[in-house]
Amino acid sequence: MARIVKKFGGTSVGDLSRIRNVAARVKRTVDAGHQVAVVVSAMAGTTDQLVSFCRDASPMHDAREYDAVVSAGEQITAGLLAIILQEMGVSARSWLGWQIPIRTDGVHGAAKIDAIEVASLEERLQDGQVAVVAGFQGLGDDNRITTLGRGGSDTTAVALAAALKADRCDIYTDVDGVYTTDPRIVPRARKLEKVTYEEMLEMASLGAKVLHTRSVALAMRHGVRLQVLSSFDDVPGTLVVGEDEIVEQELVTGIAYSKNDAKLTVFGVTDKPGISAAIFGPLAEGHINVDMIVQNIGKDGKTTDVTFTVPSTELKHTLKILEDLKDRVDYDGIVADNNVVKLSVVGVGMRSHVGIARKMFEALADKGINIQVISTSEIKISVLVDAAYTELAVRALHTAYGLDEPAQ
Amino acid sequence: MARIVKKFGGTSVGDLSRIRNVAARVKRTVDAGHQVAVVVSAMAGTTDQLVSFCRDASPMHDAREYDAVVSAGEQITAGLLAIILQEMGVSARSWLGWQIPIRTDGVHGAAKIDAIEVASLEERLQDGQVAVVAGFQGLGDDNRITTLGRGGSDTTAVALAAALKADRCDIYTDVDGVYTTDPRIVPRARKLEKVTYEEMLEMASLGAKVLHTRSVALAMRHGVRLQVLSSFDDVPGTLVVGEDEIVEQELVTGIAYSKNDAKLTVFGVTDKPGISAAIFGPLAEGHINVDMIVQNIGKDGKTTDVTFTVPSTELKHTLKILEDLKDRVDYDGIVADNNVVKLSVVGVGMRSHVGIARKMFEALADKGINIQVISTSEIKISVLVDAAYTELAVRALHTAYGLDEPAQ
Repeated sequence: MARIVKKFGGTSVGDLSRIRNVAARVKRTVDAGHQVAVVVSAMAGTTDQLVSFCRDASPMHDAREYDAVVSAGEQITAGLLAIILQEMGVSARSWLGWQIPIRTDGVHGAAKIDAIEVASLEERLQDGQVAVVAGFQGLGDDNRITTLGRGGSDTTAVALAAALKADRCDIYTDVDGVYTTDPRIVPRARKLEKVTYEEMLEMASLGAKVLHTRSVALAMRHGVRLQVLSSFDDVPGTLVVGEDEIVEQELVTGIAYSKNDAKLTVFGVTDKPGISAAIFGPLAEGHINVDMIVQNIGKDGKTTDVTFTVPSTELKHTLKILEDLKDRVDYDGIVADNNVVKLSVVGVGMRSHVGIARKMFEALADKGINIQVISTSEIKISVLVDAAYTELAVRALHTAYGLDEPAQ
Repeated sequence: MARIVKKFGGTSVGDLSRIRNVAARVKRTVDAGHQVAVVVSAMAGTTDQLVSFCRDASPMHDAREYDAVVSAGEQITAGLLAIILQEMGVSARSWLGWQIPIRTDGVHGAAKIDAIEVASLEERLQDGQVAVVAGFQGLGDDNRITTLGRGGSDTTAVALAAALKADRCDIYTDVDGVYTTDPRIVPRARKLEKVTYEEMLEMASLGAKVLHTRSVALAMRHGVRLQVLSSFDDVPGTLVVGEDEIVEQELVTGIAYSKNDAKLTVFGVTDKPGISAAIFGPLAEGHINVDMIVQNIGKDGKTTDVTFTVPSTELKHTLKILEDLKDRVDYDGIVADNNVVKLSVVGVGMRSHVGIARKMFEALADKGINIQVISTSEIKISVLVDAAYTELAVRALHTAYGLDEPAQ
């Protein structure tokens, strides 16, 4: 007997027949003798409709009212799945965020879970009843509904799994697992059987759109074993676990890429102490998430060129802030480039091995690809290159690290 | 300064532009210096959609899950109206049934309100904030959402007005008041300025589809002054009040009719003590709502004919129960007639006057209309006649009681 939390996203519960599929899947797990809590999203399209109602009602709508409106979507799915499970002879009931309750802070529209009081819910689970939990929602300290923001239902599932000390949290999605790289670029990309939280975090934030960073970080903090799997196919997915569960570590687990960044170079900056703070302080205040940063001494030795990346969506805002800095920071000009890709080689194994970076640089050089910026962490190396080389570079790296071969 | 509860039904909040009209109307009342609580239904069509989801999920769905699903409709409208009021510069917030809370019994799908704990809501009203309350929903003692069944939002509004000791409860609908009779039959029918609870109860249950019996009865019990008015036109409606508020009572206030009944005659019943109980006991157990009853001695003096009416929708069920009685009750046969109309003359003034009934019988006889069954109460006389005479009879009665003339 295991205790399992399962989470199904909007496309998995897109209509009644898909909700029936979800119910059948839950029933199989129940019939196998397990305790099951299911976290559901709103039916695909419902959230968009409700969000657009709020926007049309007022562009500057009250986030508390937005939460009351939008959370109705998950409420509907939870009730419907409970009805269908009962119809199949499975004992089940729906739980709304305020009923459990899932206590959150008061940041409406982007709340954080403070605590989940699982006592009543756990009692029912032990009686063999399936708990169908509305994802994405909680109860603020103002006694009003809060929503958790992007990736909210994943977060609900992981937090619930932690609170229930579940044996596993299954995240059902429209892909069947985590791959060594994007299979659309490298058809020989392999589905990984296991990946560590740290690797998954790097992969998630670097463009492998399987799990939201936030839920992976939460799972890591609480040691929740995650499984990513398809809600449409019945095949094993990828387990996201602690390093101790991975016996034979690969040097490199996967190759990620992201085209969501823009590169900026502020050149001819008068080089004096505090110049970095003068540039990056105002960007931080503007909530601009600066990623890679490189600073070079200029040709004359008295000025410097500062290069960094920001999300493409923030490019305009960033340029505006830099323009406004003109009085305080002396620089010659700014060049922005949206046409870049960030390539990352990820693997916990690289901690104890040297030569990983050199292999990356050589593989790219072999293909004549120029590296513009480099950044590294303990378990990844990222480089920025011209976006035109994306496919070529990803394939070269996948081959260079031996990922084309079947797993041993 | 008055405290006013306003209730808007599904067509009044059918889309965002209509919700804007509602908000504008609320704003005018606020600007005039009043405290306002608004009760809203789901946007027209939403409830039907959610109900059909539940039915498709399972014909035998759990009423608790149905309540969780269907109550989402009013939740959405409440949030959207609050957003639009704020956009117009009116302080407002939404209140869900469980937030106030509106405590109900545990009969999911058809709950009764036990108590409304208005302390927090009243505090906000006194601060000048509009309370936008989701109608039709409450909180059961199982800490789950309940819905109030048919006419539920009207009931929410009246119960809230009682709990808040509101000066008035305005029910906005698609007609602009209560008329002396159906204006589609009698174009000269007059809109009544005032009507008593008792009269309204008779009118509501007899076919004038303006207010649900349940909310009128609740208003009468708590002395809540109701106003029925149009959400589309800006004209005064009809006040539903206690008798003491009506200075000059008309003898007859209105003529109601209902085609929703079927007449049954069980003839040749052996006449012995307890025979009525033998027939009507099993019907009551079958939850059949029997209305008018007449018992005649048969031609031979040893048998009797029993005639009564039931809702047409219950005719089949009634016939089935009567068939099953064949072993215990000796009768010759049953004749059922769906083609009847119940005409009612209603007015609190008739308590102290004689001759009202005679005028009714004469007016119908003048037109050659045969009366099949008669029943009376303190403030109404109802007769059953062939449905083909409906328009003729209603017009004759409207004229006979002087209702064609303008009000004095």
